[in-house]
Parts: sequence; structure tokens; C-alpha cells
Amino acid sequence: MNSFGRLFKVHIFGESHGESVGLIIDGCPAGLSLTQEDFLQDIERRKGGQQKGTTPRKEDDIPLFKSGVFNNKTTGAPIAVFFENKNTRSGDYEKQRAVPRPGHADFVANKKFGGHEDFRGGGHFSGRLTVCLVAAGVIAKKLLRAEGVGLTKAGITVNASILEIGGETDLEKGLQKAIDAKDSIGGIVECRVSDLPVGLGEPFFDSVESVLSHVVFAIPAVRGIEFGTGFAAAKMFGSEHNDAIETINGKTATNHAGGIVGGITNGNELVFRIAIKPTSSTPKEQNTLNWESGGIEPFSVKGRHDLCIALRVPVVLEAVTAFVFADLLLLEQHIKRIL
Amino acid sequence: MNSFGRLFKVHIFGESHGESVGLIIDGCPAGLSLTQEDFLQDIERRKGGQQKGTTPRKEDDIPLFKSGVFNNKTTGAPIAVFFENKNTRSGDYEKQRAVPRPGHADFVANKKFGGHEDFRGGGHFSGRLTVCLVAAGVIAKKLLRAEGVGLTKAGITVNASILEIGGETDLEKGLQKAIDAKDSIGGIVECRVSDLPVGLGEPFFDSVESVLSHVVFAIPAVRGIEFGTGFAAAKMFGSEHNDAIETINGKTATNHAGGIVGGITNGNELVFRIAIKPTSSTPKEQNTLNWESGGIEPFSVKGRHDLCIALRVPVVLEAVTAFVFADLLLLEQHIKRIL
Amino acid sequence: MNSFGRLFKVHIFGESHGESVGLIIDGCPAGLSLTQEDFLQDIERRKGGQQKGTTPRKEDDIPLFKSGVFNNKTTGAPIAVFFENKNTRSGDYEKQRAVPRPGHADFVANKKFGGHEDFRGGGHFSGRLTVCLVAAGVIAKKLLRAEGVGLTKAGITVNASILEIGGETDLEKGLQKAIDAKDSIGGIVECRVSDLPVGLGEPFFDSVESVLSHVVFAIPAVRGIEFGTGFAAAKMFGSEHNDAIETINGKTATNHAGGIVGGITNGNELVFRIAIKPTSSTPKEQNTLNWESGGIEPFSVKGRHDLCIALRVPVVLEAVTAFVFADLLLLEQHIKRIL
Amino acid sequence: MNSFGRLFKVHIFGESHGESVGLIIDGCPAGLSLTQEDFLQDIERRKGGQQKGTTPRKEDDIPLFKSGVFNNKTTGAPIAVFFENKNTRSGDYEKQRAVPRPGHADFVANKKFGGHEDFRGGGHFSGRLTVCLVAAGVIAKKLLRAEGVGLTKAGITVNASILEIGGETDLEKGLQKAIDAKDSIGGIVECRVSDLPVGLGEPFFDSVESVLSHVVFAIPAVRGIEFGTGFAAAKMFGSEHNDAIETINGKTATNHAGGIVGGITNGNELVFRIAIKPTSSTPKEQNTLNWESGGIEPFSVKGRHDLCIALRVPVVLEAVTAFVFADLLLLEQHIKRIL
Repeated sequence: MNSFGRLFKVHIFGESHGESVGLIIDGCPAGLSLTQEDFLQDIERRKGGQQKGTTPRKEDDIPLFKSGVFNNKTTGAPIAVFFENKNTRSGDYEKQRAVPRPGHADFVANKKFGGHEDFRGGGHFSGRLTVCLVAAGVIAKKLLRAEGVGLTKAGITVNASILEIGGETDLEKGLQKAIDAKDSIGGIVECRVSDLPVGLGEPFFDSVESVLSHVVFAIPAVRGIEFGTGFAAAKMFGSEHNDAIETINGKTATNHAGGIVGGITNGNELVFRIAIKPTSSTPKEQNTLNWESGGIEPFSVKGRHDLCIALRVPVVLEAVTAFVFADLLLLEQHIKRIL
Repeated sequence: MNSFGRLFKVHIFGESHGESVGLIIDGCPAGLSLTQEDFLQDIERRKGGQQKGTTPRKEDDIPLFKSGVFNNKTTGAPIAVFFENKNTRSGDYEKQRAVPRPGHADFVANKKFGGHEDFRGGGHFSGRLTVCLVAAGVIAKKLLRAEGVGLTKAGITVNASILEIGGETDLEKGLQKAIDAKDSIGGIVECRVSDLPVGLGEPFFDSVESVLSHVVFAIPAVRGIEFGTGFAAAKMFGSEHNDAIETINGKTATNHAGGIVGGITNGNELVFRIAIKPTSSTPKEQNTLNWESGGIEPFSVKGRHDLCIALRVPVVLEAVTAFVFADLLLLEQHIKRIL
Repeated sequence: MNSFGRLFKVHIFGESHGESVGLIIDGCPAGLSLTQEDFLQDIERRKGGQQKGTTPRKEDDIPLFKSGVFNNKTTGAPIAVFFENKNTRSGDYEKQRAVPRPGHADFVANKKFGGHEDFRGGGHFSGRLTVCLVAAGVIAKKLLRAEGVGLTKAGITVNASILEIGGETDLEKGLQKAIDAKDSIGGIVECRVSDLPVGLGEPFFDSVESVLSHVVFAIPAVRGIEFGTGFAAAKMFGSEHNDAIETINGKTATNHAGGIVGGITNGNELVFRIAIKPTSSTPKEQNTLNWESGGIEPFSVKGRHDLCIALRVPVVLEAVTAFVFADLLLLEQHIKRIL
Repeated sequence: MNSFGRLFKVHIFGESHGESVGLIIDGCPAGLSLTQEDFLQDIERRKGGQQKGTTPRKEDDIPLFKSGVFNNKTTGAPIAVFFENKNTRSGDYEKQRAVPRPGHADFVANKKFGGHEDFRGGGHFSGRLTVCLVAAGVIAKKLLRAEGVGLTKAGITVNASILEIGGETDLEKGLQKAIDAKDSIGGIVECRVSDLPVGLGEPFFDSVESVLSHVVFAIPAVRGIEFGTGFAAAKMFGSEHNDAIETINGKTATNHAGGIVGGITNGNELVFRIAIKPTSSTPKEQNTLNWESGGIEPFSVKGRHDLCIALRVPVVLEAVTAFVFADLLLLEQHIKRIL
């Protein structure tokens, strides 16, 4: 349930206020160089606290290798990486327990796990676990840039960026809207993958869109995904939408398909966008049920939270995209099992 | 690769112009009544030829049970169902082979399978295989309506319908646009699932959105998916988007989440929409590569094709949705292994 | 449940007295030549009726390709193969139903599937389905002999043979014992695989022994498996059992390990043996329960049955061994995805 | 690759001389009470140092819960458990590296992982990781004893014991043989599981024998497995081997089948035996290759090692058996997802 991938497998575990969160990667080829330094940049990008609209909670987030790395290289055995939870504030969660936070998983977790769930700070449902996704992405990105993997010498690159905040392409403006309204706000993030070979993915169930969307919806707060022209394609004529192939390598004149045809990469840039809902924890007062009293009561979020969770999503989106393609490339033998 | 599901497993096979297409369902509980008649309505809904904008190709599409059904009930063993391909027109595919059809998988299939692919009519990539998805859906829907499965006595129901054709909610108007333009056109389809219990799905990798979107992108021509408010959520404030829980069963005042929070069903109606691109085979002349000559040449689609493939999608969308929930319900033991 | 393999996947279906049995292979590389003729020899080897001790039931057993083969080559899409059940004698199974045959699955099938199982001739539990295993093995063996796959130009070969019948290495003698006693008899079958590369398999859960024994116990009537020296190793000293490595390629002076160390192939011949129980259907009268009356009653097998099912096992054992190694070789990239 | 199970999933990681070894269990139902004390007895049984013939290496082996346990109960989220490696002696492994130890995985690991493997003390191939299997078994055993799971109120019990050492049923005598010979020695271990319900397992690929043998061969040094009468069945007549069903619950007069018919549990005691080879590290001097010089040289094991690894196997065998049945019981809904 907490695993993804067929040859490059990612397993995650942990809770927001438990001792630690972590991941195991099983199936990473031996011989990939890997040090703590490799993680710093992406982990820094994920952290809150650096910009308007993100939470001041800070964790050191030093990746602790527990297995699978030896002499600064992967060994072929499972790579276990840990992150300690140092900066937790246990607060009075027990007291608040019967009052499920609107937009959060509190209610469903309680029903699903029969009241046994770790409810502190969202427990296992917490966005805290995205640090595990980012760490898996760091390792996957190194694989994607290994020699001979992509169409160019630089290998395959994955880049995500924010397109809109609260409907504004001027992101400062979008954020200011939320600050002014004392409310949280959503956004749109785009991801592009370049230098992919033709032929990744499968028809039907394991189409590139299928596996990508599967893992993208593992990112909390994602509400939609579209590839290439996406929803706009529903308004187009076929002669507009079709991309004419122009070269023997499959390069097309336009890229409405976003780099995927028939579920398979076609050698053009892969492009997709995702919609991020506004942070569920808004400063605004809201109503919710008290499941003990059965009554409705006003609810106010205390503590530190992001106004716009979308700001932290790009590096997470890159990460999950990277490990999808690590897996697809291994499946198609574009990455050698031993580097 | 051509399989989906963990306990309720669907395997598909076949090609557009091969002898037959078919499916195996493994893991369907024993004791479910099942006859050919159960399939007729949904297979009829999928067929082309009944309305403006759909292809005149007709297959009898009689489901042939090969195993797993005995005395009109499922036995617990794998259910194999076949559909013969009777109405194929082999045409002169060999001749056209070096000219990949724009928007189709011809080019990527050729690269992926090294020229060994069955290229006749799209081969294994053909929309013909959606009859297998529909058949799997018929069986899954029967399970969803079994006694005690859903929140109400009627069990769980899955309904999909077309929202827009070519940007028009007046569907006749959208279709006429395409006919007038002598071009194909896209559309938007919505799916609603009612009476789901709380607690299906898992946090992160196996969220309901993850597994649903995975299988939805197995449907040819889907370019995007959004749950609940979807892309519009990216423009909303948190206090607007959050759905206030009002009852002990989790009913919410609004349903912006579309029935899923934290990746888990929350007991409200599940709602999602998908974008369907315009049919790749448009009557309009287009350019494409001839990979033998290396030159660009004009290309015209001959033969019978849908102007708007979206018209045939609702029943397919219901089907894949149904087998996702059959699987999730088995995983959470809402369906008994022996009925 | 009825599937095996990670990249080279085998799915089987069917019942003894249903319309047909069959298999799907998903993940077979494109470009492998494949014709009906390829199957004849192994299917002939599996058939009863040619020798003392095997059943006179004969099926034509012509493999019917339903998908995945085009111009006599695999396409990369799922390969569906069927065998019709022509030579069934429905008999009066309904009448005998409440009297589970000793040694057969009748009782457990009834309990497991709540009385919905197809009980005719063992239904889905029947040895009839081994024809599907043999067919999968034929395709796998072709892959194992593809250029560049094994250590030698001839590729990897899999050979199984009978070592003992009823404790006798003179097989005629063993068989005569059974004929004289008017009873069925067991045997021991050995399998050898030559020219395997070093490095297949994984430590722990996916050791070569793990995956091989998993599939070997899918063959009806197998009661034990041992690798290399096997059970005799339990009586040996370490200095006796250890195989001294003598060459840079890993060749060892002895082969007590049977070609596997630490779960991984070591470049020596792979050797293992399996124990086959006597055919459950013996001509001798036996007692069993009548689950309707609750009483014990005498039971006699009518109809045609093998005295010694072990005689038919070698080709089935080769088959499952072959598809295990097809999978392991694909996983380690010794077989190219596109031939 | 380092994972096992479909609903009750066990993932393991770690190396002999790395920082730690550990496991994740995903899919354990919420609400199972779990404390460190639950682990002590089985971990103590696994440890060397208590008896003649086992290694003096001792680890504290305190299970460190990292996630999935809250208020001494499982939460339904992944359970991560760690064991620190404190008592390692790094020795001069680098120097010995080119001299693969006979009977060990040194040579194959080097080939498989291209020289990147952690070679210290066997690295990821080390028997050290069996502490992870034992820990997974502790949790599984608690599930098997949960209310309503087995046929009796006590639930399902799993017991393994040593039958033979070096061919002697007087175990002291067998061990003394090895001590006298200054050599290591093998043995045979038997496992019995009582109070299993009828109907676990599947025909063919997921037979009980298939899944059990799969995981049993994950235990280092296992060379063979046999169920019920096992290899002796190959010498028997059918009328001798068949177990006559005597009661409506499936109890049989004899139990040659060892509790499994047609791959399915039949309600009788499950019985199987495994053969354990002599410890590869024997005090006797042996020859092996030096892969740098290419020459054969004498080799002596230094350090602490078990004379008879079979002595430590019973608790590991119980463990893997327990998590197989936890999985099979969840699959058949004999264990509720929420306790």
C-alpha cells in the first residue's frame, strides 16, 4: 500500500509526530554514487520557512543512510534513508481529537483505522512524508542523468515550476490575495521532462499517463492532472490537436500530446500540469462536527501552516516524476542494472 | 503490463484485426450470478453506429464465456471472456505502414516493438479493446450491487455522462460544429459513484485518486482528470474549498472534494471528470512523415471512424471505475470472498 | 492468483470439463519466431496414452493463437493461446458430488468456493491445466535459446527426466510393481539447467530456490523439492558440502550446491529434484466421507487415469523452470526486451 | 526483491556490518497490541551464544519501533522496526576480498553487483538479516492468535523443532560428531501449524506449498523442503498415501498430505520439513580461488561462527511460516482488516 514501482521500488513509512519518517528504495542499480550532499538542494527546496506563504516549521532533514550505500556508492541492496522528526510540537491533540479538521483526513483516518490511527498532526497522512518522496526523487534523478540514459549526453532532466497562484500568473499577486483575505490559496504546477527516449510506457493499464497520474495523486492536495493540451483538448478539432510528425526521430511540429501518444513516450518533451487545492488549514474560522457531542462547532487552526501549499509542490512533483521514469527506463532496459 | 487490480484482477488481450479480443478476471468471488444477458446493455452502449458522430463499424460483440462460469454463476476460478473480431476490413495496411497516422500510436508502437507490432487497425493499441474493459465492468458492477456492499440496499451505482462536446453543453450543437467543419471533436465526461462506504483507498501511493486515474488513463484519448472541484480548486480560498462535515456519517455541506479526502472515500458522492481529445482520425487532410522516404506527405483517413470518440466513453469510464471499486471493496472486506 | 512472473508473466485459466483451457503470456519480447509446430513436441510429451501407466484420454491439444503473434513472430502484445476440451466425458458428476475423492481437491474446493466450484473432473484444479504450463514453457524455452542469452552459443537448455518410480531406478520395474498391486505409484523427477549466467536471483525473498519452488509446487502432486545435494546435505560436514571455486568464471570442483549460492546462480549446472506422490485416483477401493449422509462409504475410481502421474511430469517441470528463467533473465537484462 | 506478501507485506533491509538492519510491515491491521516485550522471547531463541554449536556473537537486538505503533497498538500505517548493529568486528575484509569463502555468496554477489556490494561479513546476504524475519514473525504470530482467527479459541499456533543433526535424532550426538571432526554440520527442521481453517491457498501458482516454499528458501542454508510424507511419497502406492476423510470438517484418518490438498489447507495439521546444509564457515581448512591472482589457495575461517546453523533455524522458520499465514488469512478474510 505504501509502495510504488515495479523495478525501482519506493517504500515509505512514518508519521508527522512519530520518531522519524523514512523510505526504502529497492531495485536501484549498484554503482550509483550517492552522498548526503546530493540531497541538500532538493530537501532545501521542499522546506517551509523561506518565503511568504510557507510554514515556519523547520526540520534539519538530514538524510541518514541506514543501508544500501557503501563507499559512497549504491550496492544494489535496499537503500534505507531516515529523517528524524525533531521539531514536533505535540500540542493538545488528544483534546482536539473529536473535532476533525475540515479538508483534512482526520475523519476518514478514524473510520478507516477504527480509532487506532496516530492522530497527532495528521499522523501517517501528513505532508511531512513528502520528504521521503523528495529523497527518492534525488536518487532517481541521479539515475536519469547517468551516462547513456537519455537522448542527450546530459541525460534526462525533470523540471517543475508554479504556473499560477489563486488564478494569477503573477505569483506575488496571487499570494497577496490570500494574505489580504487571511485565507489559504491554491495553485497550478507544471512539470516538463526532456530528452526521454521513444517507447516508454505500455498500451492501456501501464500507459505513461497511468503510472504518472497514479504517483502524482500520492502528493497531498492534488485535485487534477492534465497532459499536453489537457482539458483544452476537449474543445479542439482533431486537425488542430494532432501533432504532425516531422522527423525520423518522431519530433512533431506542435506538442499538444505533451510527449505521449497511445500511452507511450514519443520523443518529444513530456509536459503535464497539476491542480493543487488551497491548504486545508486556513486561518479563517470554519465549522465542523464534534463527533463526541454530535454538534457542529466553530473551528480555528492554531499553529504554523502554509498559506499556499502549491509553493512547496514543484520539488515533490519532480521527485515522483523522476522515480516513475527511473522505473520505466529500467523496464525498457535504458538503464543498466549494474551501472 | 496488461493487468490491473490487486484482488479483483483484470487481464486483457487482443488486436483490432486479430481473431479476437478478450479478458480474464481473476479474483472474482464465487457465487455471483452471470449470464450473457448481463452484458448486452453495456456492450450496446459502447457500440458505434447508433448516433451521429459514431462509427458505423459494428461487431456482434457476444461475450463468449470460456471458463469460470458454471450453472450461470461464477465459480471462483478465472473468468475468461472472448469477443470475436468479425467485422474487420484488412485493407491495405502494409502499404500505408510507413506513414504513421497523426495522433495515433503507429510511430511509437513501431519504435517500441522494433517493427514486430501488429499494425493493422492500430493492433493492440486499438480502441477495439475497450470492449474488454466494458465486459470487466459489467461483472464488477454486479459485485457492487451485491447485498450488503454499499451504504444503501441498492448497493453502489456508477454513472457516467457527457458534459460537453467541443466546449458546448448542448451536445447536438457541439457535434454539429464538427460535422460542419468536417473535423473530429473532443468532449468532457463526468462520472459519479454513489453509496460508497467511508474508508476505501490508502494514504499516498494507493489513494482512490491514484488508482482511479491509473485505470482511467488506460482509456484511449483521455488527456486529463479532475476530482471534485478539480482545476477550479487552484483558484479557490481554503475556506471556500473545505467541505464542512455535518453528520456523524461524514456527510458534508458541500462536496468540493468530490468524495475523497486524504486519498480515502469520505462517504459522500464520488465525482470526477475527464477530458477526451478529438478523435485522431479526422476527415481533414493532414501532413505526416513517411518514414521510408523520410519526406512529409499529405495524409487522409479512409474508412469509418467516430467524429467524437467521447460519445462512446461513458460506458467505458463506468466500467473501469466499477472494477477499481470492486478491488477496493474486496481489499477492505466490504465484499465477501464467497458471496 | 493464477498468474506468475514479474516481467515474463503467465496467466492460466480453464477447467477440466469446460469449453477450453488457455494461457496468456504478457511481457514476452517482440520478434520471437513462434508457430504451432514449436509446440508439438512438448505437448506430445505431456499427453497420456503412449506408455504403460498413463491415461488413455487424448486431446488433440492444438494450440490456438488468439493474439500476440503476427507473421509468425511475437508482437510484444499479450500472447493468448487456447486449447479446446474435446475429449471430455461428463459422466455423472452431480451424483458423485457429495463423495469427495480421496487425495483430490474436491473437499477443499467445495469449502473454499462455497459450493460454486465447477466440480466436473476436478474443475479448475485438474491436471488438464498443465497443458497451459507446457505451452508457456515452449515459448520460454525459445527465449532461453535466443542468441546471446546463455553462456554458450546454444543458449540455455532445460532437461528433466525421471529418476525413480516407486523407489526403483529401473523404471519398468517400478511401474510393474504398481500394475501388479493394482494401485498407483509415485516417483522422483530431476531437472537440470545448463549454461546459465552467474547472478540470477536475489538474496532472501527472491532467491532462485524461492521462485523455482514457488512455481514447481504449482504442478499438481509435487510433495517435495531439493536443490543440489538437498536433504542429504543435512547429514554432511561443511568441508564436504562446500564446493571449491576453481576458475575465474566460478566453476566449482563439485556441485553440491546445485548451481545456486546465496540464492543466486553461480555459473554451474543448476540441479534439483522433486517428489511426485502416487496418482490420487488409484484402482484400489478406498473409503471416504459422504458429506450429505455424513457416513463413510467405499469409493472406487471409474474411468481413465494414470497409474503413475510422475511419467508425465518431466515436460511440465521443464516448462515451469523455463518460464522462471525467462523472467530472471529479463530482470537481469540478459534477454533484450526487443529481440 | 526484498519484499514478500500480498496484503501482509514484509520488506527487509540492512547489511551485516552496516549501521543497522530492519523491516517494514505494511498491511498489518490496526488495533493489534504490540510492545517490545512481545519480541524478546523469539529474538532470544534466534541468538547465538547459548548452546554448543552456536556463535558467541551477541547483539542486544532490541527492536526499535520507528513508525506504525501508537499507544502500544498498531495503527494501520507501515510498522518500521530497526535493530542496530553494535557488535560488529570489521576485521580486514578488504584484504580478504579477492578470496571468496567457499559456500558463501561472496563470489556471486561480486558478479551480480559489479563489485559494488558491501562485502563485510556477507553484507546484505548475511544471516544477520534473519532477525528481521523473526521480528516480522512475532507480529504475524500475534495476528494468528487474535480472536476468531483459527479453528479453536487459542488461535493458530506455529511450532518448529529440530529433528536431526548430522543424521542423528539424538541431537547432542550429532553435534558432538561435528565438534570431534572440527567441522560444521547440517540438520533437519520440522514445522507444524495447527488450527488452520480449510480453504487457504489457491490452485496452481499460489498453492500453500508454493508460497510457503517461496519464503522458506529465503532462509539462508535451506536446501530442500517436503510437505507431509514428502519424498517418501514417491515410493508409496496411492492407496497408502491417500488420506481418508472421516468428518464433515475434513479431518482425515492419516495425514500424509501434511494438511494440504490441491494447494489448499484441508483443516488438518500442516506439517513440513526442511533440510539445512552445514554452516559454510567450517573450522576445517579448504581451498578456494583468489580472483586477483587467479590461483587456488588454502582458506581458513577466522572468527566466530556456528558449527550448526540448523540450531538457530526453528524460530526463523516459525516466523516466515507465520507471516505467510497472516497473509493467506487476510486474503481469505479470516482476519479482519480492523481488529
